[in-house]
Amino acid sequence: MTTENQVRAIVDEWTLAVRNEDLNAVLKNHDPAIVMFDLPYPLQSKGIDEYKKTWDLFFSWSKHSGVFDVVEMEVMANEQLAFCYGLMRCAGKSKEGKNEEFTFRLTIGLVKKDGQWLICHEHHSLPAP
Amino acid sequence: MTTENQVRAIVDEWTLAVRNEDLNAVLKNHDPAIVMFDLPYPLQSKGIDEYKKTWDLFFSWSKHSGVFDVVEMEVMANEQLAFCYGLMRCAGKSKEGKNEEFTFRLTIGLVKKDGQWLICHEHHSLPAP
Repeated sequence: MTTENQVRAIVDEWTLAVRNEDLNAVLKNHDPAIVMFDLPYPLQSKGIDEYKKTWDLFFSWSKHSGVFDVVEMEVMANEQLAFCYGLMRCAGKSKEGKNEEFTFRLTIGLVKKDGQWLICHEHHSLPAP
Repeated sequence: MTTENQVRAIVDEWTLAVRNEDLNAVLKNHDPAIVMFDLPYPLQSKGIDEYKKTWDLFFSWSKHSGVFDVVEMEVMANEQLAFCYGLMRCAGKSKEGKNEEFTFRLTIGLVKKDGQWLICHEHHSLPAP
């Protein structure tokens, strides 16, 4: 497998875990020191415990929609470092129970430690109005 | 100079160019195929011509504030690839002429081509309300 395909496999495994709401699998390939810039507030979340909380928030919105899909993704990778960026699709429900679905931007940074790829940074966003 | 310091120098040169509103210098270390996720719309800007337009928009808002500063920045780099992420500060004026200043999130991806670091991806954002 090329390094690019190794990284695509990590991303695919993670998005599948999100669709399945399997939090242990979501966290599986993450660095304990991950820095997350999530789509909603807070401004940033540092460390795996804060990262985990961002998924509690996401699942409280997604309401088992099962939608968390890569639309397009570029991967730049070598043997030790990688980053990828592209567009994602997700769906959930507003507080009023209205269906919501939209496309957002995602950038991921990965490092290889002891032979294993770890996600050490994620940046999810929508353009500001 | 370590690869990390090479990347920090590229980022410092770029932020200085933004503060000076020197568009040629802003574009200097960018890949022609850069993909930009800017703070405001559009969702994405592909290629150096579209990237350039995002700065026209920024300068029409920043009104010579001279504020475009790194607050904190982590850099992961090896000989061929690098990415960095952190918080930035910028200032400008609303359409009504009111001073605006805020902290935003920034992730940058770089590749080394023919011995030169090039920025091939930028992701600027605020958390969604």
